Amino acid sequence: MQDVIASLEKTRTASHALAALPPHRVAEALNALADHIDAAAADILAANALDLADMPKDDPRHDRLLLDAPRLAAIAGDVRKVAALPAPTGIALEQKTLPNGLKLEKRSVPLGVVGVIYESRPNVTVDVFALCFRAGNAVALKGGKEADHSNRAFVKVIHETLATFGLPAELVYLLPPLREATTALLQAVGLVDICIPRGSQALIDHVRDNAHIPVIETGAGIVHTYVDESADAEKAKKIIENAKTRRVSVCNALDTLVIHRARLADLPFLCAPLAAQNVEIFADPYARKALSGHYPDALLKAARDEDFGREFLSYKMSIRTVENLAEALAHIAQYSSRHSEAIVAEDAATIDTFLNAVDAAAVYANASTAFTDGGQFGMGAEIGISTQKLHARGPMGLQALTSYKWIVRGDGHIRL
Amino acid sequence: MQDVIASLEKTRTASHALAALPPHRVAEALNALADHIDAAAADILAANALDLADMPKDDPRHDRLLLDAPRLAAIAGDVRKVAALPAPTGIALEQKTLPNGLKLEKRSVPLGVVGVIYESRPNVTVDVFALCFRAGNAVALKGGKEADHSNRAFVKVIHETLATFGLPAELVYLLPPLREATTALLQAVGLVDICIPRGSQALIDHVRDNAHIPVIETGAGIVHTYVDESADAEKAKKIIENAKTRRVSVCNALDTLVIHRARLADLPFLCAPLAAQNVEIFADPYARKALSGHYPDALLKAARDEDFGREFLSYKMSIRTVENLAEALAHIAQYSSRHSEAIVAEDAATIDTFLNAVDAAAVYANASTAFTDGGQFGMGAEIGISTQKLHARGPMGLQALTSYKWIVRGDGHIRL
Repeated sequence: MQDVIASLEKTRTASHALAALPPHRVAEALNALADHIDAAAADILAANALDLADMPKDDPRHDRLLLDAPRLAAIAGDVRKVAALPAPTGIALEQKTLPNGLKLEKRSVPLGVVGVIYESRPNVTVDVFALCFRAGNAVALKGGKEADHSNRAFVKVIHETLATFGLPAELVYLLPPLREATTALLQAVGLVDICIPRGSQALIDHVRDNAHIPVIETGAGIVHTYVDESADAEKAKKIIENAKTRRVSVCNALDTLVIHRARLADLPFLCAPLAAQNVEIFADPYARKALSGHYPDALLKAARDEDFGREFLSYKMSIRTVENLAEALAHIAQYSSRHSEAIVAEDAATIDTFLNAVDAAAVYANASTAFTDGGQFGMGAEIGISTQKLHARGPMGLQALTSYKWIVRGDGHIRL
Repeated sequence: MQDVIASLEKTRTASHALAALPPHRVAEALNALADHIDAAAADILAANALDLADMPKDDPRHDRLLLDAPRLAAIAGDVRKVAALPAPTGIALEQKTLPNGLKLEKRSVPLGVVGVIYESRPNVTVDVFALCFRAGNAVALKGGKEADHSNRAFVKVIHETLATFGLPAELVYLLPPLREATTALLQAVGLVDICIPRGSQALIDHVRDNAHIPVIETGAGIVHTYVDESADAEKAKKIIENAKTRRVSVCNALDTLVIHRARLADLPFLCAPLAAQNVEIFADPYARKALSGHYPDALLKAARDEDFGREFLSYKMSIRTVENLAEALAHIAQYSSRHSEAIVAEDAATIDTFLNAVDAAAVYANASTAFTDGGQFGMGAEIGISTQKLHARGPMGLQALTSYKWIVRGDGHIRL
């Protein structure tokens, strides 16, 4: 994989060219790219058809792979939205004058070269480029073999757009769709500043366990909502329905309802909207008894141990009954993947205890966990949701694609 | 290494206890620890004597390992300084109300469990604990085998102090001084939130290449100072002397002087203080010619290729002559380890170009690179100097030992 290393070296060098590019030119280039995607739609769809031809229609990846006119228009639209975001670099994050007169500025700068490893979805190629480029970064993209024609078509359009702005094609390097290329990327210490895996847990585990370069882990959400003794039942019902059924395949979807024993009698009311959507419930003995006769028999199962700490990603949910807040916190501490956790309660002290104690990227009181999303949090866009604590936690917007440097101005200062 | 994993699990659990500890209690515990170190001096020195007995006096590690009454007093004093620093956690970093009424707060929180792998210096045991504890973190410490008696003596004192505050001993876990323990620590995904290696480049490389948990790289500084055509010679002379000779063994010490060709005639003047301190110079042909007859012959060598991009950590320095600023920037981009870089110049436009273009943790104009240090930057203390761009760059103070979480308060909010 010497050619991959050689190409990454060129991408590293090209990334320096971006430092000198004024933010308004970046916006212009992104808008030009969006126009170019619109204009090249026929070519992109033709390339996509080649990928689709090799993918069985009943494979779940078929839909992820599929591009059509509305999806292409949405991709171009997202690029225009990113173009409109303010540049996250060149900002003085901190300024101070030391007692000795040295002037310090902590200034936001691009990360440099961002590596992203992803699977079937070709739109990621454009999304990732747009966000990284807006933050002044070059990108090394490793897409799935099954999307290679589509990815190459997108990268061709990006390269052509960059050329019209006098920018080097090496700013965007699409690696060959080979496992050895992934290995080379993960070991490119000094050439790639960060790697973000986007895809299945198996992909994320592979990247984390094999990378020599820094990684930001995104991934699984094992999500709880605790209905406290003091909960408002109406709010709880709406929140449970929304968190469980708004989109079952996303990482912020509800997996386990934790309920205070004093509110077991409310369970039929709380779960009524779930029955209407055929949500299968794995209930502990208390919850099962409370729901029995009030929830469709076919959808009401006894919970096994493995139904707690399980990310369902489907119309399924488990229920755990607890004696008190402490037991709820203990259950969540044991099973949470530290993504999104919620409490429904009216008692202010209980809410504060929960919000302080729960260790997760996003902790909610009286709101649906479905809000864990960069767009919803007002970041304008999102490159992923970090489940680690280093660098970025939770939804990652443009700021997560920056670092900083210390600029120090003196007048012949020496250290004594 | 099942026992290491089991202990790390206990440390993870114990870390939750810290979340509830008010900041003033942390400060009290640290002050008590400092007193306890003073009181236990005889025991600690006795343990240290056992380590020293196995270490040859001519081994450079002997001095790093050595504790004596003044050094112990300094260690206790540093703990008191950390106690006096404000807690970096529980701070609202950002607050906003979304258009839908959801209230968001981005609040600083501890990382959780911080792993530190280090070598001969037993003082690191106390330094790291104090900083991590001030930021609300539990620690997993893996010290060198050669310092094990000393490390265990310090950890005993820490455990006894924690006990008097009702805090679990598991907050500080000293791993056995075995390579397998390092491996277990580096693979403790979900138990240890971050690993900071402190020591030789070989140690750092091993940690980076084998860790499955997030790592912050600290390490080598290949440091340049560029003397521009517009430089003030007096300032340049002082800065070069300070950056090179203040302490030659540190990572921010000057390695390569880059000089504009128009200022070659100033080289004898600029280097005069170095001759007085027997600094060996590896000069390119232009610089060598300029210094010849003005610098002790025995100390003036022809630079080989490998003398550029070399971290000397001793009384040695290379000199490279350049035609202009662009050539200086290219040299630095090629050889810099992105730690600390400086320009000496009076021309404002040249200074700005340099400060913008150079990619390093700290970039200086008219000041010595010796200032790259958490204490000097006003951080109060330093856990290390990061040479990566993720999470923290340059000197890392208490803030680098924190993460954040999003606290979201609603009133029955659901996402449409």
